[in-house]
Amino acid sequence: MDYIKIFSPATIANLSCGFDVLGLCLDNVGDEMTVRKIDEKTIRITKIEGADLPLETEKNVSGVAALALLHEWDTDYGFEIEITKNIKAGSGIGSSAASAAGSVFAINELLGRPYENKDLVRFAMQGEKLASGSAHADNVAPALLGGITLVRSYDPLDIIKIEAPEELFATVIHPQIELRTADARSVLKQHITLQNAITQWGNVGGFVAGLYTRDYGLIGRSLQDKIVEPIRGLLIPGFDRLKIACQTQGALGSGISGSGPSVFALSRGFETAQNAASAMSQVYDDMKLPYEIHISGINPEGIKILDKK
Amino acid sequence: MDYIKIFSPATIANLSCGFDVLGLCLDNVGDEMTVRKIDEKTIRITKIEGADLPLETEKNVSGVAALALLHEWDTDYGFEIEITKNIKAGSGIGSSAASAAGSVFAINELLGRPYENKDLVRFAMQGEKLASGSAHADNVAPALLGGITLVRSYDPLDIIKIEAPEELFATVIHPQIELRTADARSVLKQHITLQNAITQWGNVGGFVAGLYTRDYGLIGRSLQDKIVEPIRGLLIPGFDRLKIACQTQGALGSGISGSGPSVFALSRGFETAQNAASAMSQVYDDMKLPYEIHISGINPEGIKILDKK
Repeated sequence: MDYIKIFSPATIANLSCGFDVLGLCLDNVGDEMTVRKIDEKTIRITKIEGADLPLETEKNVSGVAALALLHEWDTDYGFEIEITKNIKAGSGIGSSAASAAGSVFAINELLGRPYENKDLVRFAMQGEKLASGSAHADNVAPALLGGITLVRSYDPLDIIKIEAPEELFATVIHPQIELRTADARSVLKQHITLQNAITQWGNVGGFVAGLYTRDYGLIGRSLQDKIVEPIRGLLIPGFDRLKIACQTQGALGSGISGSGPSVFALSRGFETAQNAASAMSQVYDDMKLPYEIHISGINPEGIKILDKK
Repeated sequence: MDYIKIFSPATIANLSCGFDVLGLCLDNVGDEMTVRKIDEKTIRITKIEGADLPLETEKNVSGVAALALLHEWDTDYGFEIEITKNIKAGSGIGSSAASAAGSVFAINELLGRPYENKDLVRFAMQGEKLASGSAHADNVAPALLGGITLVRSYDPLDIIKIEAPEELFATVIHPQIELRTADARSVLKQHITLQNAITQWGNVGGFVAGLYTRDYGLIGRSLQDKIVEPIRGLLIPGFDRLKIACQTQGALGSGISGSGPSVFALSRGFETAQNAASAMSQVYDDMKLPYEIHISGINPEGIKILDKK
């Protein structure tokens, strides 16, 4: 096999209570990437459609992730990468993660799968480090594994995949403003109250329990964030109105997707997710703010192979 | 029914990662209590064996918890309570919780079960408030519900019961020193780093996932505490040696039981729990420190009725 074409999905990190540890894989939003073996021992980004991103390997997240993989798994050949970006950079649904995870996934396939998907996370994290200054895994893990992932620990890396309940659907609205992950991180306080932390880890426990027991009510009650949302929410236009809008439509809960500015809601059933989408759209229509909106099931497997030869 | 005799179990709160939210119910360590209906509309503590505790209703945790229940559920009669304490006060395995939970459980039975056990938690918490100054639920919840409990939220109270994996056993060693919960709380810092908090909620998520998937390794890896243990561990004689001792015997993990001074280990299988007990005993034998040690399965149902008529 010398050629592979993949779909690399968008992801929602944090999920309110799980800052830096939880992530969810979307099903119908994502980039396409093709990767080809080449004789020359190098990584080359030949084309990026849909976004103005650097082609230079060391400055491109997919390039850096690929180099991290090949630094460990030596070959005497190289790879050419083409990317069609559908996930907007800075949207908060794992644009850089899709590129980084996609590149190492595709190369691993072309190498004959020396690594399990879980083991690719640490290479993809190097792409995230380039993008945001922090080698976080909460987007690349769900992109590579699908479902909902928990990064229990970074040192050593310990990632748990949790299957999403079948009826869970996500609505994501992306106001067309750009918010850089690095900026969104810089507003965070480095110390928090023990009381808020206790509330937060109670909710992480509740959310995980809700996933395993398919208790949608518990999932919804656990989607709370006392730590990051009160600060980052201020950077997102109409944030409180979006939350109220989806709540009135019966969404289980809502919050900031990753570091924003996208806002997500989780719902039980497609119809509720659709109603949440209408209500959230109305908020931005009223504000005359351009936006994109997605309604998606939870992708159970992560990156998909579209073609190979 | 005018009389009931119950077994009210000891409990391990916090479980390392889950400060103030997680708790576990022990099976073979606990108090006995008898409660009788009396004509007079009052709560009377008639006898306490095995501990020097106040008989005055308003100063006794079981009295205060009973009053909280009867404040809401009015009767024209009262109750007499006798307690045989086997759980030492200040041991860190929920001595006050056993008394508070036991009293409201027994009275609820004699009233004809107007409340579900889960609804009794808030009354029992009033006993905890008397004992430690804080109306926490992480001991009374597992005592009343059994298994492992997660207090997701205090306002509103939202408690999730998780069944413990069958092969999980606890070892608890209690050095014969007294450490008051209120004192153990006062040493805690009220602000923590965001980084440590993230580690902690990653572990809570991992622990809960490990319970549902019966992944004993994950349960063990998640039994970590970067926040409370480094501070409270200093108050417990030989704490680091105890941790190493049970680890060398293959325990999954260990930590401070509640606010200490008891130290617990969780193991897969009774034999490992027994080996952990021997190794932990040896530490205190070497230090010539008197101790009590318990090996227990996880009590799936909480408080047990021994007799009623």
